[in-house]
Amino acid sequence: MFKTIGVFGKYQDASVEEPVKALTQHLEKKGLRVKLGHTTAAEIIRDLPQELLHDAVHLDIDLAVVIGGDGTMLHVARRMAEAEIPVIGINRGRLGFLTDIPLADMLEEIDMILNGEFTEEDRMMLDVTVYRGTEVLYQQTALNDIVIGRHALEKLISWEVQVNDQFVTAARSDGVIISTPTGSTAYALSAGGAIMHPGTDVISVVPVSPHTLSNRPITLPANSDLAFTIQNRTKNSAHVSSDGLIGYSLIGDETVKIARSKHVVKLLHTKNYNYFAMLRAKLGWGRTQETR
Amino acid sequence: MFKTIGVFGKYQDASVEEPVKALTQHLEKKGLRVKLGHTTAAEIIRDLPQELLHDAVHLDIDLAVVIGGDGTMLHVARRMAEAEIPVIGINRGRLGFLTDIPLADMLEEIDMILNGEFTEEDRMMLDVTVYRGTEVLYQQTALNDIVIGRHALEKLISWEVQVNDQFVTAARSDGVIISTPTGSTAYALSAGGAIMHPGTDVISVVPVSPHTLSNRPITLPANSDLAFTIQNRTKNSAHVSSDGLIGYSLIGDETVKIARSKHVVKLLHTKNYNYFAMLRAKLGWGRTQETR
Amino acid sequence: MFKTIGVFGKYQDASVEEPVKALTQHLEKKGLRVKLGHTTAAEIIRDLPQELLHDAVHLDIDLAVVIGGDGTMLHVARRMAEAEIPVIGINRGRLGFLTDIPLADMLEEIDMILNGEFTEEDRMMLDVTVYRGTEVLYQQTALNDIVIGRHALEKLISWEVQVNDQFVTAARSDGVIISTPTGSTAYALSAGGAIMHPGTDVISVVPVSPHTLSNRPITLPANSDLAFTIQNRTKNSAHVSSDGLIGYSLIGDETVKIARSKHVVKLLHTKNYNYFAMLRAKLGWGRTQETR
Amino acid sequence: MFKTIGVFGKYQDASVEEPVKALTQHLEKKGLRVKLGHTTAAEIIRDLPQELLHDAVHLDIDLAVVIGGDGTMLHVARRMAEAEIPVIGINRGRLGFLTDIPLADMLEEIDMILNGEFTEEDRMMLDVTVYRGTEVLYQQTALNDIVIGRHALEKLISWEVQVNDQFVTAARSDGVIISTPTGSTAYALSAGGAIMHPGTDVISVVPVSPHTLSNRPITLPANSDLAFTIQNRTKNSAHVSSDGLIGYSLIGDETVKIARSKHVVKLLHTKNYNYFAMLRAKLGWGRTQETR
Repeated sequence: MFKTIGVFGKYQDASVEEPVKALTQHLEKKGLRVKLGHTTAAEIIRDLPQELLHDAVHLDIDLAVVIGGDGTMLHVARRMAEAEIPVIGINRGRLGFLTDIPLADMLEEIDMILNGEFTEEDRMMLDVTVYRGTEVLYQQTALNDIVIGRHALEKLISWEVQVNDQFVTAARSDGVIISTPTGSTAYALSAGGAIMHPGTDVISVVPVSPHTLSNRPITLPANSDLAFTIQNRTKNSAHVSSDGLIGYSLIGDETVKIARSKHVVKLLHTKNYNYFAMLRAKLGWGRTQETR
Repeated sequence: MFKTIGVFGKYQDASVEEPVKALTQHLEKKGLRVKLGHTTAAEIIRDLPQELLHDAVHLDIDLAVVIGGDGTMLHVARRMAEAEIPVIGINRGRLGFLTDIPLADMLEEIDMILNGEFTEEDRMMLDVTVYRGTEVLYQQTALNDIVIGRHALEKLISWEVQVNDQFVTAARSDGVIISTPTGSTAYALSAGGAIMHPGTDVISVVPVSPHTLSNRPITLPANSDLAFTIQNRTKNSAHVSSDGLIGYSLIGDETVKIARSKHVVKLLHTKNYNYFAMLRAKLGWGRTQETR
Repeated sequence: MFKTIGVFGKYQDASVEEPVKALTQHLEKKGLRVKLGHTTAAEIIRDLPQELLHDAVHLDIDLAVVIGGDGTMLHVARRMAEAEIPVIGINRGRLGFLTDIPLADMLEEIDMILNGEFTEEDRMMLDVTVYRGTEVLYQQTALNDIVIGRHALEKLISWEVQVNDQFVTAARSDGVIISTPTGSTAYALSAGGAIMHPGTDVISVVPVSPHTLSNRPITLPANSDLAFTIQNRTKNSAHVSSDGLIGYSLIGDETVKIARSKHVVKLLHTKNYNYFAMLRAKLGWGRTQETR
Repeated sequence: MFKTIGVFGKYQDASVEEPVKALTQHLEKKGLRVKLGHTTAAEIIRDLPQELLHDAVHLDIDLAVVIGGDGTMLHVARRMAEAEIPVIGINRGRLGFLTDIPLADMLEEIDMILNGEFTEEDRMMLDVTVYRGTEVLYQQTALNDIVIGRHALEKLISWEVQVNDQFVTAARSDGVIISTPTGSTAYALSAGGAIMHPGTDVISVVPVSPHTLSNRPITLPANSDLAFTIQNRTKNSAHVSSDGLIGYSLIGDETVKIARSKHVVKLLHTKNYNYFAMLRAKLGWGRTQETR
């Protein structure tokens, strides 16, 4: 089933060297082929055979294993989605929303997955395209969220949103987050959004510090087409970012279109995975309950 | 298409008499049969022919017209859902989330609908069943929400929730709201929940004034099976209500099961209907925008 | 300085027996007189000399030591305030906002206080009086908060508030919390209020799940005179409670007046006390900071 | 009492020309001396006698009248505070929190004030000073708020705060707002802070979209000394702004100290002023109440 495994370590983080090596040896002993992620290989693997090193993010693998945090996972998972390569995430200490396998359980979990003891979960992504008229200025795909945010030198941005060509509202705020269910536990949660179970088929629109107090988060069907415009007309007044990576500086005459991506991230889970247990651990739920 | 029309006025509200009569005359002139809702007829219609009066909520009608507020609409719509009778709502002054047709437009809108110029929108409902062991103690269906709330004499309730037999969390709060997308703009919004577009296929769980600050609203796929238990063991410590109607006093050994109803409320909309325009009007969105 | 010490254990909680005895012996060895709180003595102290048992809450003591949780502390502290008797709180496991001394440190902390190594902190309280015309129906003093809340059978209460005879607002909500700075980390925090440092001289008014989303918490100078009326006219539609204890059922023709009490609770702190450290521990602040 | 009146119009806004002229004529007819604000004069007053034009913000006046919005008011009021010159604010359409006199009432209100029919209200301000070691890098005074915010290219800032040399918390967020009571209805309100009555003697610290959900707003006594440091070490990672004006780009080795200013803004109010009426109008309070 899985013959070639890609292993991706956190960028510029020496602490992943040990687990990357342990995993590589484990997989090779089982007769599997291992390809190290480009930066992973270049940075941290010095004494591994040369033939394991490759130049690019590999798309000729059957399974991607990420060792790092949610940031690394976001980066790798987006790339794998296009090639429909499934992904699993190992955290090196602190549990992540996406890197849900503790390092201590890495080999055991990998073995279960190699034995076919897993379920696959598809996570939707969002495509953002910035247009000036019909010209495409920027295009990106996000697993967590697209954020349109004010530049630090602006007090706020004035924006409007249309859904399926219907005017929704004009608002003024620090910014607006357009989030997948996966992203609902990231920035959207800090800004007052609700948690969306990954099984919901929705897009959340969460205004950040809105001027009008009734501008509350609104959740839309996942097949909605969103179009945002901003009224600020100063250069660098607002930015579009995707999964926390700055992408494009708006000057006000653009339209930011957002819709569900045709690609999905394929996460593999063993029977040890439990979404709610992960939420409880990350958000500290039930803690007071148990001690009082 | 629609031959017999049921007309339902707000309970014990004399101000609906005039529009009920106007609508009745308008429909009868067109050769349609009108049946007045039981309480509507008994209370306010004194000089209409006796044959219009009937004993029960009619289910032998083709269309139900509600004249009143969202409370009346909730009441009638739940009843109509079982018989798959479509519903429209007329408000007598203040726009409602569900009674979205202004009184002034009543006859014009009705005519459009009688002419077939409408779309139908299905709104999901929730079934709540309270069990002690296998014994069913209470059963109800809600279009807006199910609320498990503390009695006024309790400081808070301790509750736990399972989703599809998986433990989600234990929490302590004033209560917990389980809401449909329709109910997301009602009590759930006041308690900090997000707005859910009626096209989303979800159930929202919104804790009310939770003791643990990270116990944020969580939105689940609509096909989830929820099971709540409370730990308070005093009689009358907690209540289950459905669409704002008190249903059952819990003593602590019950399980409150909630799942999507097999019935839906069928709302009819003419081209004048716009969900986002209704939100803007009800929530005051875009107001500051226009004047600044 | 402190010659007679009152010791108060949590009501109906056998786990305080051990520390109550240990403290009693410790104090008597030092030649101090100990008086046990009425319920403390009756319930849990069976083999202590009879002369330690007394009938009432003692006001002939120089210092009150509470062993229990914040609930016990609230109860004892209110009583001590009238007689200007200082109070300290020992928690038996879980740190409290008011019972800030861990059981393990009890004897050491007590000794510091007996040696005069302490500072005194005054905590303001609120007086609530319910009037029908000029008739006084109910009167109570609160260290945390006064709550006017809907009965479980009501959807919400409609209320109005005047401050220093000026109309502030009419609102509809589950209820309204009127909180001291001490109470700002209790129910008011769950309902969306801000944390008020005990050194602020303020009263917070926090609507619970308000119907109008802009009905946000408002903080007033501590010398404000507040007067609330409710418009619900059904018997038992609303209740006034004080520090979580139900006090009075409103029928709608009453005025609920709230003002700063002339009494204060005198808390003693050794150098080990740190308000912000207590907040961090109780609210989990800085936790992610340290581990990421 | 008031012999020389300064009149200040909104910067680069032609619509203030008319009321500035009307006010000037009204005051001169009464034999008072009028001085126009520098930018006011230069921009919009072309046909007024030359001797009314002056070069700088005047501090040789007895009363400052601002015609514009809250932004203009903030700007002028801060300048007047140092010279203890009282200020009143006229709005040209949309009511402001600080420009609370409608244009239509301008002359009548001015006359009342000239007749001595007013009360004076002092509004506290905050001083912010940025230090590197003992070197002062930036200094400013704010009537509304000081904001430490992330640069658009940063995901969040990591910051710590000390109050009176006591460590309060480490947090990660979009930013943090340090607000006066006056500023509590501005950005701090959008970010989830409580409203602080101008009569409260407090400083509010409001985290913006904090990563840890329990990092709630905290309100401190006005005499607190606050010291913030940020851990982000990239140039331009964070900014300090004062009343919405960008002041200083932090690189991470600075300390941002904030304390109450020794100056206050002196607002004059006639009997027509009502703080709560202004809140109701600005926040839409009581609206639903009246119509339901």
